Amino acid sequence: MTESSLTEFHRRIQQLVHDGEVDKLREVLGSLHPSDIASLFLRLDRQGQNFVWDLLPEEITPEVLVELDEPAQEELLDALSEGEIGRLVDELDSDDAADVIGSLDDEKAQKVLDTLDVESQRDVRRLLTYEEDTAGGIMALEVASVKEDSTVRQAVQELRDLVENEGVEDIYNVYIVSADGILRGVLNLRQFILAPPKTPVSELIEDDMIAVPTSLDQEDVANIFRKYDLVSLPVIDDYSRLVGRITVDDIVDVLTEEAEEDLSIIAGTRDEDPGERSTFKVFRERFPWLLTGLAGGLIAATVMHHFQATLLEVIALAFFVPVITAMAGSTAIQSSSIVVRGLATGEIGLRDLLPRIFKEIRVALLNGLVLGIVLGGIVSFWLQEFNLGILLGFILLINICIASVLGASAPILMKRIKIDPALAMGPFVTTAIDILGLLIYLGFAMMVLT
Amino acid sequence: MTESSLTEFHRRIQQLVHDGEVDKLREVLGSLHPSDIASLFLRLDRQGQNFVWDLLPEEITPEVLVELDEPAQEELLDALSEGEIGRLVDELDSDDAADVIGSLDDEKAQKVLDTLDVESQRDVRRLLTYEEDTAGGIMALEVASVKEDSTVRQAVQELRDLVENEGVEDIYNVYIVSADGILRGVLNLRQFILAPPKTPVSELIEDDMIAVPTSLDQEDVANIFRKYDLVSLPVIDDYSRLVGRITVDDIVDVLTEEAEEDLSIIAGTRDEDPGERSTFKVFRERFPWLLTGLAGGLIAATVMHHFQATLLEVIALAFFVPVITAMAGSTAIQSSSIVVRGLATGEIGLRDLLPRIFKEIRVALLNGLVLGIVLGGIVSFWLQEFNLGILLGFILLINICIASVLGASAPILMKRIKIDPALAMGPFVTTAIDILGLLIYLGFAMMVLT
Repeated sequence: MTESSLTEFHRRIQQLVHDGEVDKLREVLGSLHPSDIASLFLRLDRQGQNFVWDLLPEEITPEVLVELDEPAQEELLDALSEGEIGRLVDELDSDDAADVIGSLDDEKAQKVLDTLDVESQRDVRRLLTYEEDTAGGIMALEVASVKEDSTVRQAVQELRDLVENEGVEDIYNVYIVSADGILRGVLNLRQFILAPPKTPVSELIEDDMIAVPTSLDQEDVANIFRKYDLVSLPVIDDYSRLVGRITVDDIVDVLTEEAEEDLSIIAGTRDEDPGERSTFKVFRERFPWLLTGLAGGLIAATVMHHFQATLLEVIALAFFVPVITAMAGSTAIQSSSIVVRGLATGEIGLRDLLPRIFKEIRVALLNGLVLGIVLGGIVSFWLQEFNLGILLGFILLINICIASVLGASAPILMKRIKIDPALAMGPFVTTAIDILGLLIYLGFAMMVLT
Repeated sequence: MTESSLTEFHRRIQQLVHDGEVDKLREVLGSLHPSDIASLFLRLDRQGQNFVWDLLPEEITPEVLVELDEPAQEELLDALSEGEIGRLVDELDSDDAADVIGSLDDEKAQKVLDTLDVESQRDVRRLLTYEEDTAGGIMALEVASVKEDSTVRQAVQELRDLVENEGVEDIYNVYIVSADGILRGVLNLRQFILAPPKTPVSELIEDDMIAVPTSLDQEDVANIFRKYDLVSLPVIDDYSRLVGRITVDDIVDVLTEEAEEDLSIIAGTRDEDPGERSTFKVFRERFPWLLTGLAGGLIAATVMHHFQATLLEVIALAFFVPVITAMAGSTAIQSSSIVVRGLATGEIGLRDLLPRIFKEIRVALLNGLVLGIVLGGIVSFWLQEFNLGILLGFILLINICIASVLGASAPILMKRIKIDPALAMGPFVTTAIDILGLLIYLGFAMMVLT
């Protein structure tokens, strides 16, 4: 649904809610995809949301719940009883069920689990043991698997049962397993359609199977999907037994999430989403970054205060403070963003620290030389301040080189100690580089000019 | 393949190239996935690349070519003759073929096209007419479609032919079309497996079909995939005729590309990739951003020069220049990144300009008040500079509000005039906001303090 038709539907639904036109509202809601209902739901006020939620056909409420963004989902779950949540969760795929229950507080989660049947309880508990951002954390347990000694005809019959009785949807690949559950191979549905019914499935297995362990980071899983153009991927345990599968729609979510995460780390907006949130919540999310910036600025002010005598003697030094800090910051961001991206896609590894630094130094020397000559030239010849010009050109070169090395190495070092490398583009590192640049600038200036 | 095994294979291949062990090299290469060969290829020097390329089994060279990143692909294409490129392109899906030919210069592209058969020529030419970043630009023409009056049995037979004779791979969905080629519905392979063979396919059609026009922006296409958890999506022309399909692996690439684009716009690294590129090329890509920063810094220096008398009178004013510019810049980035992200996912629309500004103003007032009181308090009571403290607190509040409004509105206004909204996070806008902040700061200071 396009944004303008969403706006139109929103108006219509608001009007129907306002007029209390229950039947017409039911009709409109019944004609919409659960994802669209979720989008509309987010635009309604609390009262409208309650009204609409109660009118939704029971069979689509679980899907609408899953499609809501996190804050709206949490608000809704707060308002529902454990029994109601249990009924919703029961209809979800195991991965979605685990996500919903994982977002509740422990006590409520326990109560919801108690309403589920033994098998679902076991599934959800098992999924909750995996880290959220690993293959185990994003996989679903519902897999279409057949034993390696089946024929194609038997396998197709088994698949029919799975779809009809177990509610396994979205079958793209069929996993062939041994009697012990060890993953032997992966077939796609096309191969089933094409093969004669009496063929043993084991004969169809090709030997280029790709599977991932439960502990693999979700970013690495996404890279495997991207690299091999996959639609789904089996997940195995330490004994090579098939335990679940990841589908590409989860990967699309992972990619969106990781991109948003990087952007929000740079901007300092945390995991804020653009939708409806209270002013105070948004304030609380953005404030820490700005406070860090303020603290950095106060340190910079202290540094400048320390060099007060020099500044008063050569006031022009103050004029170029913004240039020096801006150039150091920009260079650091350039070097670090390339490394952060390379680490994310696997193109840069943890061992590439030194080669990467050498590479950045070469680029920084070129940039520093050209920009240093431009700045030095302008100040020396245009403003007729020869000494200041030479100093500025030299300092710019040094600062660009230092910022570049720090910017390139920070993400790799952070990843080594298991910190999100994107943080290197965040406030702490860039502010620290700004202040370092300022210290070098004014320190040199004091020595040379006064 | 993991990064460490990639490194190991790289060493082994380098050694084999060095020793000229042709047979062993062939054996190793034959055991690898084309994507892995492409990754290894990128790590070799030019000589190694040529050596390996000539040894690759002919049937996988097209796939390796497609998996290479753009600069490496261009270098390779430069070295190949039109005839060789034609032979490679002939084996590719229409979308990949169009991408490769589209990357050549006009003359070479024409020569390569001449080597293709009439049908492929027509396909590629048609695909090249669509904008690169639209549904038409990323779709493939190879679709699995069956006429609406077929039975399931006939349809399955047609699909077999398509796979065996036309080389259509990756069938996830089957499109049902009228005699005129108008798209009637979408079925997935599961429905074919489950339905009795004599069922007319028209009976299986459900009415929630989703299709996109050729002109839709690729980011909007990606949002549709994400929203409805799709694996493939039909593309239709202005007369609702089926013209192609987009598969989710293309969307995974689109998402990665868009995320990298946003990051590189902020950092000013253009479309640089982390792999092997010459120092000079990287320099050329990063230099413009830094030069913009330098120009911005020089304007800031001019502004400060203009207020020289004021600064000399109250030198402490200079100390807080970094705070004022940093806070304005950070606030602008926070407001704009949320809007850029919301525009990308469709959560914020072009009509949302005023509500978004009001929302940002509320948050900015809160942030500005708290941070203004903190800064003002520190300067007034700690440094005992009451007037300067009150001025700084007040200026910080004003600057945060202005930066927030400009940051939030710039991306929406840019999108309205069809400029990439992510540019609002780039050098021009943030530098402009920095300088504006500085002008307000020193202007007020001159009026109040001197």
